[in-house]
Amino acid sequence: MIKYRNGDIWGFENGDHVGCSSSYSDSESGVILGVDGGTTSTICVCIPFSSLHSLPDPSLPILARAVAGCSNHNSVGETAARDTLEQVMAETLLNSGSKRSAVRAVCLGVSGVNHPTDQERILKWLRDIFPSHVKLYVHNDAVAALASGTLGKLHGCVLIAGTGCIACGFAEDGQEARAAGAGPVLGDWGSGYGIAAQALTAVIRAYDGRGPQTLLTNSVLQSLSLSSPDELIGWTYADPSWARIAALVPVVVSCAEDGDQIANKILEDAVQELALSVKAVVRRLCLGGVDGNGSFPVVMVGGVLEANRKWDIGKEVIDCIQKTYPKACPVKPKVEPAVGAALFAWNLLKKETEVNCHR
Amino acid sequence: MIKYRNGDIWGFENGDHVGCSSSYSDSESGVILGVDGGTTSTICVCIPFSSLHSLPDPSLPILARAVAGCSNHNSVGETAARDTLEQVMAETLLNSGSKRSAVRAVCLGVSGVNHPTDQERILKWLRDIFPSHVKLYVHNDAVAALASGTLGKLHGCVLIAGTGCIACGFAEDGQEARAAGAGPVLGDWGSGYGIAAQALTAVIRAYDGRGPQTLLTNSVLQSLSLSSPDELIGWTYADPSWARIAALVPVVVSCAEDGDQIANKILEDAVQELALSVKAVVRRLCLGGVDGNGSFPVVMVGGVLEANRKWDIGKEVIDCIQKTYPKACPVKPKVEPAVGAALFAWNLLKKETEVNCHR
Repeated sequence: MIKYRNGDIWGFENGDHVGCSSSYSDSESGVILGVDGGTTSTICVCIPFSSLHSLPDPSLPILARAVAGCSNHNSVGETAARDTLEQVMAETLLNSGSKRSAVRAVCLGVSGVNHPTDQERILKWLRDIFPSHVKLYVHNDAVAALASGTLGKLHGCVLIAGTGCIACGFAEDGQEARAAGAGPVLGDWGSGYGIAAQALTAVIRAYDGRGPQTLLTNSVLQSLSLSSPDELIGWTYADPSWARIAALVPVVVSCAEDGDQIANKILEDAVQELALSVKAVVRRLCLGGVDGNGSFPVVMVGGVLEANRKWDIGKEVIDCIQKTYPKACPVKPKVEPAVGAALFAWNLLKKETEVNCHR
Repeated sequence: MIKYRNGDIWGFENGDHVGCSSSYSDSESGVILGVDGGTTSTICVCIPFSSLHSLPDPSLPILARAVAGCSNHNSVGETAARDTLEQVMAETLLNSGSKRSAVRAVCLGVSGVNHPTDQERILKWLRDIFPSHVKLYVHNDAVAALASGTLGKLHGCVLIAGTGCIACGFAEDGQEARAAGAGPVLGDWGSGYGIAAQALTAVIRAYDGRGPQTLLTNSVLQSLSLSSPDELIGWTYADPSWARIAALVPVVVSCAEDGDQIANKILEDAVQELALSVKAVVRRLCLGGVDGNGSFPVVMVGGVLEANRKWDIGKEVIDCIQKTYPKACPVKPKVEPAVGAALFAWNLLKKETEVNCHR
C-alpha cells in the first residue's frame, strides 16, 4: 500500500494515459530511476530494466529525463530538498509513461549526504513514497559520478573538481572511502573555489606589499569590472557564494598559460591537493593492491579537470597519481551522473535476479 | 544650523538638565567624542578638551562612555550602522551632560571603512548631525587601535589579531598603509578565524588520510561535543560565522603547548603571516628609515596576541619583525581604542589651537 504524501505530485498516476504509451511501463520488467542531486541542479533519468541483458554502452535507452533545482539539504533545508527530489522523480515517471508500481529500483546520489544519518533520513521518506518491493539506494552524488564512469559498477575512485571537490572510492568488497569534499572552510584547496580564492588572495597580497606582483591583478580586476584591489573586499562581502568565486578559474588558467608564476603555483598546488585526495582514498581501500601496481579506474569529473589551451589540470593530476600508482587508469564518463546512478541500481538488481534464477 | 535628522535620539538636548551637571559642557573649551565601531560592538567615549594641556596618561578624565551593537556596514547594512553610531554618540553626550554644540571634534574608527568612498559617505551624514564648526575624522577601526597605543599620535604600526586581523600604519607625513584585513576569503591566515579554520582542516585531513594524526582531533571534537570528524562538515555549514570558528583558537594553543606538531606549525605559520603584514606596512611607509634601524611603535591588539601558558604569539611576532627592524618597539595599549580615537582628535585640535595662538 503506497502512502500518498503529496497528492498533487503523484496525481498523474490516476489518469488513463499512464501505462499505455510505453512498452516498459507497468510491465513485469519495470523501470529504474537514477538521480544526481547537486547544489546547482538535480537531474533524474528513467531507464528500462528488462531490456538490458548486458551493460548498455554506448546507446543507452533513456525513457525519460527531468531537471530541477538544488537538492542539497545543507543549502536549502530538509523540506525543500525532499520536495525537489520527489518532484523531479514524479516528473520523470510521468514523462516515461510509468507509475510508481512499475519502479524496480531508485538510486539517489545527492550532495550533502555526508553521514549515515543523512542516508537514513532520506531512505525513510523514500520508503513512504515507493511501494515496499522497490529497492532503494542513497549515496553522496560522488557515487553517481563514479558509476557514470564505470557503467554502474562501484569500484575504483572518482575525483570531482568543480566549484567544490571530493575524491570517493569503493573497493570490490563494498568498502567506501572519501577525501576532501568538506567545503572551503575545511580546506578544499583543489576545488574551483579554492583556486579562485587563492588567486584573489594573491591580488590582495601583491597590492598591500605582502606578496609579489602578478598578472592576476589586472586580469581579475578586469573580469570583475573593478578598478582597484581594495574593491575586492567589498566584492567578496557582497555575495560570498562559492560558485561566483569559482567562476574566476578560467582567469587563473589564462594567467598561468601567459607565464605568470603565481598563477602557475596556484594551479600546481591544486594538482597536488587533488592528487593527494585520490591517493588517500586509494591507499585506504588498497585499490592498487599490496604493491600499488594493481589497476583501477579513476573517474574524472568537473570543469576544473577539463583541458585548456596549455594547462590540463586533469592530466597533471593523473601524472601525479601514477607516480605512486602506475596503473591508475583515468576515465572520462560518457554518460551523465544521473545515468550512473541508474546503472548502479541496474547492476545490483541484475545480480539479485541472476541469483534468484540460479536457485 | 543643525539639521535634526532623528528627533528622538537628540531630543534630550531640549531639556533643562543638559549643561548643568558638568563643568565641561557647553563651555568654550568643549568636549571630544571618540568612537570605536566594530563588528561585535561599538563604544563611544567623551573627553574634555580644554583641561588637557599635556597628554593625559595615565589618569585620563572620561566624562562618559556608552556601548552599542555592530556598526560595520558590511555586516548590518548602511542604515543600521548609521543608526547605531548616531545612537551611541547621543547616549554618550547625554551621559556627559553636554549638547552637540559643545562638541569640538568627533573621531570615528569604524570597521568596514576600507575605501575612500566609505569615508566620504560617513563624513556626509556626520556633517548633517553636527554643527559646522565640529572637526570630523573618519577612519578604519585599526586607526583607533593604533591611537590607543600612541596616545593619539598617528605614527607607527598597529597589528590587530582577534577574529580577523589587520596591520595598519602611518608615517610622520600622514601617509597611510594597510596589509591584510581583507577577510577569510582573501587569505587572512594569521587571524583567529584563520588559525581555527586550519586546525579544523587538519582534523579533516587526518581523518580522511591526507594528513598526519594530530591531538587536535580529540580536542576539537570534545570542545564542540561532536563524536566524529565528518560531523565537522555539518557543524561549519550550520553557522559559518567567523567568531564561532575563531573561538577554537585556545584549543589550538593548548594542543601546541602539549607538543602537537600540527598545532605548532599552524601557530608558527600564523606568526609568519602576522609579522609579514606588519613588515609590509613598515616597508611601504619607510617607518624604520632608509637602513631599517629607525625606531617606531608597533601597537599590539587582540586576543590572538595575548600570552598563553607557553605560547606567546605576540612575542613571536615581535621577534620576527625585529629580525628585519631591530628597533620595532612593541606597545600594549593602556586605554581602549575609543579613547585612542578621542585622543587622535584631541591631538589634531591641540595642534590647530597652538597654531592659532602663535599667529
